[in-house]
Amino acid sequence: MERLLPAIDHPAALRGLPRERLPQLAAELRAFVLDSVSKTGGHLSSNLGTVELTIALHYVFDTPRDRIVWDVGHQTYPHKILTGRRDGMAALRQWNGISGFPRRSESEFDTFGTAHSSTSISAALGMAVASRLKGGKRHAVAVIGDGAMTAGEAFEAMNNAGVCAGVPLLVILNDNDMSISPPVGALNRHLARLAPGARAETPVPPATMFEQFGFDYTGPIDGHDLDALIPALEKLKRLEGPQFLHVVTRKGRGYAPAEADPVLYHGPGRFDPARGIEPAPDPAARRKTYANVFGEWLCDEAEANPAVVGITPAMREGSDLIEFERRFPQRYYDVGIAEQHAVTFAGGLAAEGLRPVVAIYSTFLQRGYDQLIHDIALQNLPVLFAIDRAGVVGADGATHMGAYDLAYLRCIPNMTVMAPADENECRQMLHTGIGVAGPAAVRYPRGTGPGVPIRKTLRPLPVGRGELRRESRSAPGRRIAILAFGTMVAPSLQAAAEFDATVANMRFVKPLDTALIARLAAGHDLLVTVEEGAVMGGAGSACLEALAAMGCGVPVVQLGLPDRFIDHGDPVRQLESCGLDAAGIAASIRRAARDKLAAPVCVAAKQRSA
Amino acid sequence: MERLLPAIDHPAALRGLPRERLPQLAAELRAFVLDSVSKTGGHLSSNLGTVELTIALHYVFDTPRDRIVWDVGHQTYPHKILTGRRDGMAALRQWNGISGFPRRSESEFDTFGTAHSSTSISAALGMAVASRLKGGKRHAVAVIGDGAMTAGEAFEAMNNAGVCAGVPLLVILNDNDMSISPPVGALNRHLARLAPGARAETPVPPATMFEQFGFDYTGPIDGHDLDALIPALEKLKRLEGPQFLHVVTRKGRGYAPAEADPVLYHGPGRFDPARGIEPAPDPAARRKTYANVFGEWLCDEAEANPAVVGITPAMREGSDLIEFERRFPQRYYDVGIAEQHAVTFAGGLAAEGLRPVVAIYSTFLQRGYDQLIHDIALQNLPVLFAIDRAGVVGADGATHMGAYDLAYLRCIPNMTVMAPADENECRQMLHTGIGVAGPAAVRYPRGTGPGVPIRKTLRPLPVGRGELRRESRSAPGRRIAILAFGTMVAPSLQAAAEFDATVANMRFVKPLDTALIARLAAGHDLLVTVEEGAVMGGAGSACLEALAAMGCGVPVVQLGLPDRFIDHGDPVRQLESCGLDAAGIAASIRRAARDKLAAPVCVAAKQRSA
Repeated sequence: MERLLPAIDHPAALRGLPRERLPQLAAELRAFVLDSVSKTGGHLSSNLGTVELTIALHYVFDTPRDRIVWDVGHQTYPHKILTGRRDGMAALRQWNGISGFPRRSESEFDTFGTAHSSTSISAALGMAVASRLKGGKRHAVAVIGDGAMTAGEAFEAMNNAGVCAGVPLLVILNDNDMSISPPVGALNRHLARLAPGARAETPVPPATMFEQFGFDYTGPIDGHDLDALIPALEKLKRLEGPQFLHVVTRKGRGYAPAEADPVLYHGPGRFDPARGIEPAPDPAARRKTYANVFGEWLCDEAEANPAVVGITPAMREGSDLIEFERRFPQRYYDVGIAEQHAVTFAGGLAAEGLRPVVAIYSTFLQRGYDQLIHDIALQNLPVLFAIDRAGVVGADGATHMGAYDLAYLRCIPNMTVMAPADENECRQMLHTGIGVAGPAAVRYPRGTGPGVPIRKTLRPLPVGRGELRRESRSAPGRRIAILAFGTMVAPSLQAAAEFDATVANMRFVKPLDTALIARLAAGHDLLVTVEEGAVMGGAGSACLEALAAMGCGVPVVQLGLPDRFIDHGDPVRQLESCGLDAAGIAASIRRAARDKLAAPVCVAAKQRSA
Repeated sequence: MERLLPAIDHPAALRGLPRERLPQLAAELRAFVLDSVSKTGGHLSSNLGTVELTIALHYVFDTPRDRIVWDVGHQTYPHKILTGRRDGMAALRQWNGISGFPRRSESEFDTFGTAHSSTSISAALGMAVASRLKGGKRHAVAVIGDGAMTAGEAFEAMNNAGVCAGVPLLVILNDNDMSISPPVGALNRHLARLAPGARAETPVPPATMFEQFGFDYTGPIDGHDLDALIPALEKLKRLEGPQFLHVVTRKGRGYAPAEADPVLYHGPGRFDPARGIEPAPDPAARRKTYANVFGEWLCDEAEANPAVVGITPAMREGSDLIEFERRFPQRYYDVGIAEQHAVTFAGGLAAEGLRPVVAIYSTFLQRGYDQLIHDIALQNLPVLFAIDRAGVVGADGATHMGAYDLAYLRCIPNMTVMAPADENECRQMLHTGIGVAGPAAVRYPRGTGPGVPIRKTLRPLPVGRGELRRESRSAPGRRIAILAFGTMVAPSLQAAAEFDATVANMRFVKPLDTALIARLAAGHDLLVTVEEGAVMGGAGSACLEALAAMGCGVPVVQLGLPDRFIDHGDPVRQLESCGLDAAGIAASIRRAARDKLAAPVCVAAKQRSA
C-alpha cells in the first residue's frame, strides 16, 4: 500500500484524506516517531500516546486558523511531523535543530510555547476571549494531561473559563494516568472513578468536577480510537461555550517496551527499537550525577536525623528520590505538580520543628517564588531547597534554563545560598544547609560534575566563607583573581594557568565572603567573577555591591549567562556559546587584561562620553 | 451584667466560661473590634464576620496546642483580642505596634504568618503531617475564605490533603460571598448552589467539589450561630482524616453600615462608628493616587486603542479599575485571586495581537513569576505590567512590601522596566509600555506622588533614556551625582542642594541608560544610586554592572531597601528607618563624601585585609 506520511507537509493534506485512511496514517506516524526518537533521543512514551489525538485534531479543526495549545508540549512530535517538520525531526533538540517543545518562532502551528506544565488552559482561554472580542469564530483547544491538571494554574484557569459564557474554548484532558512520575493526589482518584468501568457502578453518575466548574463534559472516550475521537471533536466544534473532553490514552502506545515501562521510556537517549533500552553495563562504575549525590545524601541525613522530611513536586525520578521513598516512605511527600504548595507545606512542617528538604529544579522554583519569600524567608523557617538543574540544561532549552535563581534568591532577606564546585562539596553543602537556622538553598547543575571522591562523613562548611584554590605569584600590576561560583570553579582553574591567576571557590552567594573579596581586591589588579547564572543581578553583582560598599575601584570583569534566552542543544555547546568554558573564560580575561591592566581607571567611560 | 471580655487574657479563660455566656462574649468582642478599628483604622468587615467562629474555635480546640492557621489573616483581630493582645489593639498596624496579620514572632497563638491569600491549607497540612509523624494528636485547622479558595495554591493543597489518610486536618471554608472585590469564577457559583435554600431543590444533592477531593464535607452551617458552630466543631474534632466544614458568615456582621457596604468597610481609616465613614469633602480636589493615575490612563488608552484589555487578579478597587470596568465591560477581566493564570491569560491575548495590561501589586506578581518568565518574556509577548504598591507599603508591613520587583524583573531577558518619578511620568510610561514590542513593566508606589500636573496628551518616552534634573557646578574632585530611580527622585533633589549634586532621573531600570551613566561617571567623583527597592540585585546593582563593564572605578554609594524585612507602620517612618528620606540620603552622601572623596581608591579594602 502506498505510504501516506511522506505526502503530508501541511494539515490541509491530512484533511484531504478519506477518513478510512487515517488508521494507516496513524500507524506510519507512530513508526516514524519511534524510529526518529530512537535515533535522536527525546520524549517517547508521551508522543506514542498522542498519535491519534493529533491526527484527529488537525483533521477536524482548521489549523493553524484554529489554535491548539499543547500543555507541557513534549508530546508534540506527531504534531510537528504533520505540520511540515518531518525532516526537522532528525535534529530534534540539537543545537540549531528544532525544539522539543512547541515554539512560536518555529511554526505558525505552534500557537503558544509550552514546557512548564499547566499553562495551556490559561493561554487557550486568552485566545478564545481574543477571538470573541475580535468577532471571529476561531476555536482554541487546550490539550492537557492528568498530571498537569493537578497544578494550581490549571485550576485557576478552569475557575475563570467556567464563567466565560460563549467562548470557543475546548479543553481536552489527555488522561493517561501518568505524569512523569506516577500520578498522585485527589484529582487522580476522581479521574479513576470516572473511568468507563468504574462509572457504571453508580446508578446516577455524579457530576464531574469539570461540570462543577461550568464546563460541558464529554467522555471518557478512547483516545486511540479515531472513530470515537473524530465524531466527538466534530460535535464539540459546533457547541457554544467552554467544552471539556475527557480522552483516555496510553503512554507508550504501540511499542510494547514503552507500554510496559513508560517511565523508562519517558525521555530516553538513543536506542535500538528492536532491542529496547539496554541497562547500563555497570551502574556502580557510572559517574554519579548531582541528583544521585543529593539522593544519597538525603538518605544518609534522614538516617541520622529523624526530623528530615523529603518533598518533591512530581519529580521523584529527576530528583533521584526513589531510594529515599523506599527507605523512608512516611517521610517522603510527592505533592504533585504543585510547587507553590510544596513550599508552603514545607513551611508548615518546619514551623513544627521538622527539617523539610524541598527537592526542586531551578526553573520550577520560579513557581514557588512568592511562597519562598512570604511563607519561608519572612518567618525565617529552616527549609532546605535542593535546587537541581541550575544553569544550562541542554536539550530542554530555554524554557528549562536554571539561569535566574541566584538573582531571584539573593535579594531575599534571611536566605543562605550556596553553589558547590564539585560533588563532595554539594554533599557537604546540603548538610550545611540542614544546620542553618533559617532557609537555605544549594543550587547544583544537571548531570555529572568533575567526579571527585565523595566523603561519606558529613561536616558543615563555615557559612559565608569561600576558599582559595590557586594563588597567583605574578608581579604587582599583573595580578588577576578569579572569583568563581559553583560549576565555574573547574573551568576557571583551567583558564587560570595562562595568567597565573588566583582562583577562589566562593561557595556562598549569600552571605558573601566579603573578607575574602576585600583581600583579593587589595592584592590583585583585576578581578573576574564567573558564574553559571544570569549575569544581571547574579553572584558577580553581589561582588560588585561588596566592592562598592568597601570603596574599592579595582577593575572587575563579570562573566555569566548573557541577557538573552539560550537555545536547546548540547550543554557543552551552550556554555561555549556564552564564553563559559575554559577557553571562553581565558579569552575574556585576555581581553580584559589587555584593556584594563594597562589603562587608568575611567578611561573607558571617558572615551564613551567624549 | 458583668462584662466578660476584660477577664479573657488567654483562651483558657474563654474555655472556662459556660456555653450560655458565649453570646454575651461575642457581643462584647464585636463591640470591641468596632470601637478599636474605628480608632486605629484597619480591616473591619472581615473581622466583624469572624467573631463567633473565633470564639467557637478557641472554645472547642486546645489552643495553642492545637494549631489554627488563618488564611490571609486580616480577619484575626478577634483572635488577637482573645489571645492576650486586647491592649495591643490600640497600636494596631502602627510602627512598633502589633501587626494586622498573624505573626509567629508576636504570639504562640499565631502559628503561621499569613497575609498573601490561599496558603493556609498547605501550612496546616504540613502541621497535621508533622503531628502524625511525631505521633501526637495535635489538630491543625485552616480557616479560608471563599475568595482565597479560588487561588491555585489552595487547590494544590486540597489535592494533596485529600489523599493524606488519617491526618488531623480540618479545613473551614468561611463563605461570605466576598473577597475584597466581589467574588468571581466557577467555584463561587458552585458555592451558591450549596447554599441552604439552593440545595433543597435537588432531590439527590450532588457531591460537593470538596468531597471529590477526598474530604468529609459538613455544612453549610450558620457561622454566626454558636449553637451550630460548637457542636459541629466538637464532632469534627473526633473524626479521623481530612475534614471540611462549610460555614456561612456575613462580612460586616452586626454593624449595619458595614453589612450594607462591606467593600467600603473592608479597610477603613479612622471613623466615628455613630456616623459611619463620611464621604471625602471634595473628591475632585483630593490628590490623585498612582492607582488613580493608572485607572484614568487605562480608560484613555482603551478609548484610543481597541486592542487594550485590562486584567486584575481580584483587585478591582485597589488597582482602581472600577471606571474601566464600567466603560469597557467586554475588555475587563477580573480573573479571581489567580496571579499565575492572570499572567498566562494575558499571554494568550497578546499572542492574538491584543494589548493586555495586567494590573498587579508588586508583592503579588511574585505569584506569577514563572509565568512572566516562561509564558511572556521567553516569547517576547507584548504584555504590560502595571505594578502597584512597589516599595514600602505602610500598615500592611513586610508581607506586602514591593521590595523585590526590580531585582527579580531585571534579570529576565526581553523585559523593559520603568520607575516613574511622578504622576505624569507614570502616565507617560504606561503609554510607553503599551508601545514596546515586548513585555514591559511600570512600577509605582502605593498612595500619592509629588502632585505634579498630569498631561492629558500621551507621548512615549525614549526607551532606555534617563534625564538630568539638576547639574552640579562644583569643582572637580568634589562633584557628586545622584542616580535616582522612581520615587527617590524627589527626596534626592531635596538632598542634592547641600552638596550641589547632579541629580539624574534614571527612568529605566532596564534597558539602563548606560550612556548617561558613562557621562556622569566621567564628570563626577562620587556616584550615588537611590531606589525604593531591595539594594541587593536592584537598580543600583545594574549601575554597578554597567560601570564595571565600562571599566570605570569611580566610587559608588548604593542606597535602597536594606537586606531585612521592614515592619509595618507609617510609610514615612519606614523610609526614614531605611535612610531613604531626604535627610537620610543626605546623611549617607555626607558620610560617603567624607570617606571617599578624600581617600584614594581601595583604601577601605586594604584596611580591612590588613
